[in-house]
Amino acid sequence: MGKGITYPLGFYASGINCGIKKDGKEDLSLIYSSSPCIASGTFTTNQFKSYSVLWSIKNIKNDIKAVLINSGNANACNGEENWELTIKLIEQLASKLKIEKNSILFASTGIIGERLPYEKIVSGLDKLIENLSPKNNLLAAKGIMTTDTFPKEYQINTKIKGRKKEVFIGGIAKGSGMINPNMATMLSFITTDAVIDRKALDAALKYAVDESFNMITVDNDTSTNDTVIILANGLARNKTIHIESPEFEIFCDCLKKICIELAKKIALDGEGGRKFIEVVVNGGWCKKEVRRVAKKVCGSSLVKTSIAGANPNWGRIIAAIGSTNARIDKKNIEIKICGISVFRGEPVKYERDKLIELMKNKEIKIEIDLKRGNFSATAWGCDLTEEYIKINKEYS
Amino acid sequence: MGKGITYPLGFYASGINCGIKKDGKEDLSLIYSSSPCIASGTFTTNQFKSYSVLWSIKNIKNDIKAVLINSGNANACNGEENWELTIKLIEQLASKLKIEKNSILFASTGIIGERLPYEKIVSGLDKLIENLSPKNNLLAAKGIMTTDTFPKEYQINTKIKGRKKEVFIGGIAKGSGMINPNMATMLSFITTDAVIDRKALDAALKYAVDESFNMITVDNDTSTNDTVIILANGLARNKTIHIESPEFEIFCDCLKKICIELAKKIALDGEGGRKFIEVVVNGGWCKKEVRRVAKKVCGSSLVKTSIAGANPNWGRIIAAIGSTNARIDKKNIEIKICGISVFRGEPVKYERDKLIELMKNKEIKIEIDLKRGNFSATAWGCDLTEEYIKINKEYS
Repeated sequence: MGKGITYPLGFYASGINCGIKKDGKEDLSLIYSSSPCIASGTFTTNQFKSYSVLWSIKNIKNDIKAVLINSGNANACNGEENWELTIKLIEQLASKLKIEKNSILFASTGIIGERLPYEKIVSGLDKLIENLSPKNNLLAAKGIMTTDTFPKEYQINTKIKGRKKEVFIGGIAKGSGMINPNMATMLSFITTDAVIDRKALDAALKYAVDESFNMITVDNDTSTNDTVIILANGLARNKTIHIESPEFEIFCDCLKKICIELAKKIALDGEGGRKFIEVVVNGGWCKKEVRRVAKKVCGSSLVKTSIAGANPNWGRIIAAIGSTNARIDKKNIEIKICGISVFRGEPVKYERDKLIELMKNKEIKIEIDLKRGNFSATAWGCDLTEEYIKINKEYS
Repeated sequence: MGKGITYPLGFYASGINCGIKKDGKEDLSLIYSSSPCIASGTFTTNQFKSYSVLWSIKNIKNDIKAVLINSGNANACNGEENWELTIKLIEQLASKLKIEKNSILFASTGIIGERLPYEKIVSGLDKLIENLSPKNNLLAAKGIMTTDTFPKEYQINTKIKGRKKEVFIGGIAKGSGMINPNMATMLSFITTDAVIDRKALDAALKYAVDESFNMITVDNDTSTNDTVIILANGLARNKTIHIESPEFEIFCDCLKKICIELAKKIALDGEGGRKFIEVVVNGGWCKKEVRRVAKKVCGSSLVKTSIAGANPNWGRIIAAIGSTNARIDKKNIEIKICGISVFRGEPVKYERDKLIELMKNKEIKIEIDLKRGNFSATAWGCDLTEEYIKINKEYS
């Protein structure tokens, strides 16, 4: 792995077990910046937002110094007492870090409806702070995991010039169950040492999230806790990036790249998934339509099970496309699976045995050309396996 | 089972194997009325409609004498040649039955993208016609099955007075995979001997389908072939039912009852499903919203797997509700599972062991009160099991 969230200058990370997870694995993470950051966030659209999400939405526009994350407990739908506990917890952390409570953001993931394990978390804060280090990025990545099978990190050199080095961006993410369009139990924290104004940071994050985290789907559920937060501490001392600066586009592309890499790791690690699916849709009438088609195909239970079975049942792909109201040239629409054309307005003769062999690979690419325009979108997901059922029957 | 589609006067049914299904099971059904019928239909909203659906949409307003149904082949996305084959096939049947080709409707279900097995079906027509009988309703119900594990029939006495007897309604259906809102690979054929005008029949069918077939969900896919057709041959010689007649409401209620019973059988027989789920939503702001909530909860993969595991994870129900934009009184919303209240604005203390025991039953009822209005809706589905994956990995 790389340096993740501690790749940019001035960021420290920590991850410990405070007793929420019974197996001793990391369940509490902290990200800390030596300088105050401007921050931007994208939060779940679910009506039942966790108290952690509500706290972060309330404070996202402040100068931010730290982000606390716990896994194992969602802090959602657990009763109003937990809003008080959330505030008390943040106050404790603020006092120990000697910073303002309003400069701390908070995120949670885990079981819904259970009391925030306030005492456990508070008892872990000293150790959590003590372990803060530019070297503990991986521990922080582990501390946000639930059913994930591997920690997810990525970092990038933007080639945007800073005072001494170039501007860096780093990130961690967790995903697995409930991953769905419009944010799902998915957390991602991104750090950068760029000097960038708030408007540009907000615009860059929205653009990057729409092209990445919002294009992955594991099942069709949407969680109460999704959060993507970016912190920019300005320590690279580059020329301030505005929406009109020439560097803005570069920053957006780099941020998108990080978000896509993290999103793909999430899709790859979808609950029970053994295969990675990429659906590329070209030739669309508008951006909204191509996105919808890509996500519909990528999220179809029947398509996903076909892929699990290495079964070239393209009829299910066609049915998924047709169930959207996207504009399609029905006489010319083309579908390829693993590079082999199977449909072009009507069925194409292809070597079925060869395709079955190709579909046994770990990575399956589906290409769809709607032949109606110039817009493209890509969605990512994983196959649907017996293992998904097993995990979700038992998780509680 | 009962008399199904041959319960009303003047209807004959038949079902044979013509060689599409390799195991010798029925794969071709015929419904025939001794008198011409007015007909009404609801068809898939999928953009890639099968040629069989296109044929039926074209002819639904004619006087109808017969409906042909094949299973094992969807007659969809298989190339334009199959439109010609469809017409030739219907011409063959018309000539053998000595009726107009435009008085025949057609429906298909099965694999997408394969050539219509024209020769097999034509070679079976003589035997199919020979077997037409008021007693062969069950064979017709079997001939429309794909992965269904049992045939689905229902019939009802309307208590609307006819000349000699009361008006009867009967129906058959098939469901299983791809069952979803807005029609999915789901076929249903309903017969009645009522005298009813077209406007009333259309209105009654739309009302009944919205409250029944459109409220079931097995997975989230929508097929190219869904069809619900009702035939009314008028042989009961009742006073014509108009939209304003007092009997119209009775007819609607009876038709709804039949459609709900058939829809529930489909949900019960969802691919791999071992448990039947009923989600009742009350207290909604408007009909559209309560329907959306009921279907969202009933269709959530995470809720469905929880139920498969007899796991009272109500957080997943809350997350599914919250992911819709329905108006909700968050402080008072109530959720009951198997009659036990688990959430009322905040978590309710309940006997977890008792609920786990109740959730081991075959029928699981989830009740949700949004506390925002007076609208109600009910959705039906089944749990999500390892068996679903197995069936859909292998079906081809």
